[in-house]
Amino acid sequence: MKLLEDRILRDGQFLPGNVLKVDSFLNHQIDVAFICELGKEFARLFKDSGVTKILTIEASGIGIACLTAQYFNVPVVFAKKSKTTNIFGDVYTAKVESYTHGTTSQIIVSSRFLQPEDRVLIIDDFLANGQALNGLIEVVESAGATVVGAGIVIEKAFQPGGDLIRSRGIRVESLARIAKMDGANIEFVQD
Amino acid sequence: MKLLEDRILRDGQFLPGNVLKVDSFLNHQIDVAFICELGKEFARLFKDSGVTKILTIEASGIGIACLTAQYFNVPVVFAKKSKTTNIFGDVYTAKVESYTHGTTSQIIVSSRFLQPEDRVLIIDDFLANGQALNGLIEVVESAGATVVGAGIVIEKAFQPGGDLIRSRGIRVESLARIAKMDGANIEFVQD
Repeated sequence: MKLLEDRILRDGQFLPGNVLKVDSFLNHQIDVAFICELGKEFARLFKDSGVTKILTIEASGIGIACLTAQYFNVPVVFAKKSKTTNIFGDVYTAKVESYTHGTTSQIIVSSRFLQPEDRVLIIDDFLANGQALNGLIEVVESAGATVVGAGIVIEKAFQPGGDLIRSRGIRVESLARIAKMDGANIEFVQD
Repeated sequence: MKLLEDRILRDGQFLPGNVLKVDSFLNHQIDVAFICELGKEFARLFKDSGVTKILTIEASGIGIACLTAQYFNVPVVFAKKSKTTNIFGDVYTAKVESYTHGTTSQIIVSSRFLQPEDRVLIIDDFLANGQALNGLIEVVESAGATVVGAGIVIEKAFQPGGDLIRSRGIRVESLARIAKMDGANIEFVQD
């Protein structure tokens, strides 16, 4: 999506270790009007998928998911992260390892908010190694619901997550796919 | 706001210790169309305040803030919570104690996203003892910016936060104000 690629080039900060900071418009300050345009694009891509619910993970996925959900007219559920392993009540959980932080956390969704008949679109800001996305898929499958696909804002296509998840037959639509980062030189995957 | 009071009565769960769970529409599952109605009400209340930015705190404030921000056409900034006291870089911080969890955390906002000329509306889901709101006000004041007010979804008016903050001359608009909770009996403050 050219609008997004242009914004990444203009406002992204490129830090050592393949870190791309987009906190001026995506995940600390949120350019709401801009994110609505991304939401409309997700709605266009998944308009025939019969989406009944959008699932994301706290914290930075929530704004994108809510602004996108308006165009589907469906509710959002956000998975919570927890360091504790003692989770009580009726919940679905999955383990998520963070390469960036070197930690393992649990993600948790109350079983009241995912039903077997749900057709779930997963929304997140980044896809790199796919740990968070895998955890969200596991949660949906635990509920017996259907993953219709994942809508990702920025995919680091040089990391394995996207290809691994696509190879399992899950539709992944990333609005910007970074093929290569080298300092401030960035190349997007060309469709 | 009657729409909200009715929804709390219908879908809220009332647990021991004055705990009100509204996770089916506000802070785990999010009824996006419903939250948009709350956002429109915040926009009506603060339409003459010259709001340039909405500030909230992760995680459950983010969705409400983003859906509200559309009606002001301003960006959202969300404060991050951190247990660590070693924060590097140019940030504003404040300490926030949680009565519920018995913990103290820091909230952090990058100084790039709050300018002295900003007129900031603070949005959050709950107001009880006012710790989170006080921390957010402190962050805005550290930036030399102006707090035009706080828009709160549910205020536990039998706890002291709202009155303390109003007594400092800060405008606090809560869409539902609970006067009393006693089991499933709940009374709202009548205007």
